Amino acid sequence: MTHASNPAAGDGYFTEANSAEVVIARHREAENERLKTVMDSAVRHLHAFVKEVEPTNAEWMRVIDFLTATGHVTNDWRQEWILLSDILGVSMLVDAIDNRKPRGATETTVLGPFHVSNAPRYENGQDICLDGKGEKLLVTGRVVDTEGRPIAGAMLDVWQANDEGFYDVQQQGVQPDMNLRGVFTADETGAFWFRSVKPRFYPIPADGPVGQLLGALGRHPYRPAHIHFIVAAPGFETVTTHLFTPDCPYLHTDAVFGVKADLIADFRTVDDPAKADELGFPNPFTQVDWTFVLARTAGEGHA
Amino acid sequence: MTHASNPAAGDGYFTEANSAEVVIARHREAENERLKTVMDSAVRHLHAFVKEVEPTNAEWMRVIDFLTATGHVTNDWRQEWILLSDILGVSMLVDAIDNRKPRGATETTVLGPFHVSNAPRYENGQDICLDGKGEKLLVTGRVVDTEGRPIAGAMLDVWQANDEGFYDVQQQGVQPDMNLRGVFTADETGAFWFRSVKPRFYPIPADGPVGQLLGALGRHPYRPAHIHFIVAAPGFETVTTHLFTPDCPYLHTDAVFGVKADLIADFRTVDDPAKADELGFPNPFTQVDWTFVLARTAGEGHA
Repeated sequence: MTHASNPAAGDGYFTEANSAEVVIARHREAENERLKTVMDSAVRHLHAFVKEVEPTNAEWMRVIDFLTATGHVTNDWRQEWILLSDILGVSMLVDAIDNRKPRGATETTVLGPFHVSNAPRYENGQDICLDGKGEKLLVTGRVVDTEGRPIAGAMLDVWQANDEGFYDVQQQGVQPDMNLRGVFTADETGAFWFRSVKPRFYPIPADGPVGQLLGALGRHPYRPAHIHFIVAAPGFETVTTHLFTPDCPYLHTDAVFGVKADLIADFRTVDDPAKADELGFPNPFTQVDWTFVLARTAGEGHA
Repeated sequence: MTHASNPAAGDGYFTEANSAEVVIARHREAENERLKTVMDSAVRHLHAFVKEVEPTNAEWMRVIDFLTATGHVTNDWRQEWILLSDILGVSMLVDAIDNRKPRGATETTVLGPFHVSNAPRYENGQDICLDGKGEKLLVTGRVVDTEGRPIAGAMLDVWQANDEGFYDVQQQGVQPDMNLRGVFTADETGAFWFRSVKPRFYPIPADGPVGQLLGALGRHPYRPAHIHFIVAAPGFETVTTHLFTPDCPYLHTDAVFGVKADLIADFRTVDDPAKADELGFPNPFTQVDWTFVLARTAGEGHA
């Protein structure tokens, strides 16, 4: 016969009330203490979420279907899970937590999926725009430590989308290889400079499940115009960051939440015919000047 | 120049402190109010989880890698996402929330992935074991309403693993088609009966990412021995449930948390040579007798 009520409170069986505790109790034999900590927390928050929204079985199957579709669109060329993490703000949150910097050091932001490890090494002054499209831009700046002292020889890995909003790796055979990317080295005064074009806003890949979710949430898929930088030097924390233009319509609604106020740069108009002539630019042209401030790695005290 | 501190508190940009609020603010244009509610809650709990465990970027990439692998092992024949939901206790939690029953009605548990919709319809008394393996079992019982009145014509859809711990659909070409499954109809007294074999415990598919996670958590992949039932009748809530044997070593550690105390049945030994002879069983044999109690659907009052 079936029983009219549960005769054995404390029998260890799963109930709606004790659900997370019963699952977590099964983790007690986990060998990796960190994995146990992470999974205990994941189960607690996942169950709290389910108890808060009270999904029907049919709704939960729609979640399963979304995960299934997201898994199936992911391949070696497209990482829909990172995109999902990005649009939920989790990538930026992890970045913030993993890159708490000393006061004054340049803020980090997301790496994004379009960095390549074999970009060409250039001399300062080189033009990285190989397709000739877009509004000419001079980028100048310095790399210094948190005391303002130059970091000679610092490496700057730079990349950006072209004037149509695509990275070279998204348009192989259309854009020249290595269009709008390069690695520069700061001189003995910490200075660097190169020629490029003003970056444009562009959409994240929106034709998959994550794009559908964005649409259903009433959100657009655009990232505000930016230039990517990775700035590194021996003895200092590497900084992965962007410079944003100040006038982009998506500056306050970046689809991946990558904007920080401290990363919005002054892209100013320069009216200087002689300088324009030297650069091979029309006059007037746009210039951005930026100082990257690197923090020493832990354990390496100030000299 | 970079700024030493954020000059614009309240500028709406993402920070570690305000992360969830900034993401949720983007949902304000969502057309579907339910989707907005679910995603607001999901973002809040996901960010709370990340803030609690403070993953490094490298750890978060391991999460991305796990999701990627789980997505890639999922296909039309294998649903690793449901398996993940199962081993985290979420499937049972959603089931509990979506099937709150009037006191006295038979409890539900997980459907599992091995139900088929075209099982053969049998007369009461039929033996559903087509491979001849295992210890003979007589299943008897009744289907009644919450007042104890018989529900004539109730349908019982039954399935179980064979004596080696596999369902027929997992061993096509090895087991006879439709081995250990069938649909029965309760007679005018609400009674049903059929012949089968004692169920055995078995592992959930453990050769994928979810199995690796179980292993890393120090958990085994076994489900305790059970028989699946779906019991349905017009005017009543359908019940998807199991009967568990009381003596299984995994009864208290079901890998998917499907056990409820009220679903553990008395599988008793019967010493009755005449009855055994009538059933074509050796004497003694095992019998389980169970009463399924169905609740009327909402809006249909008692007669």
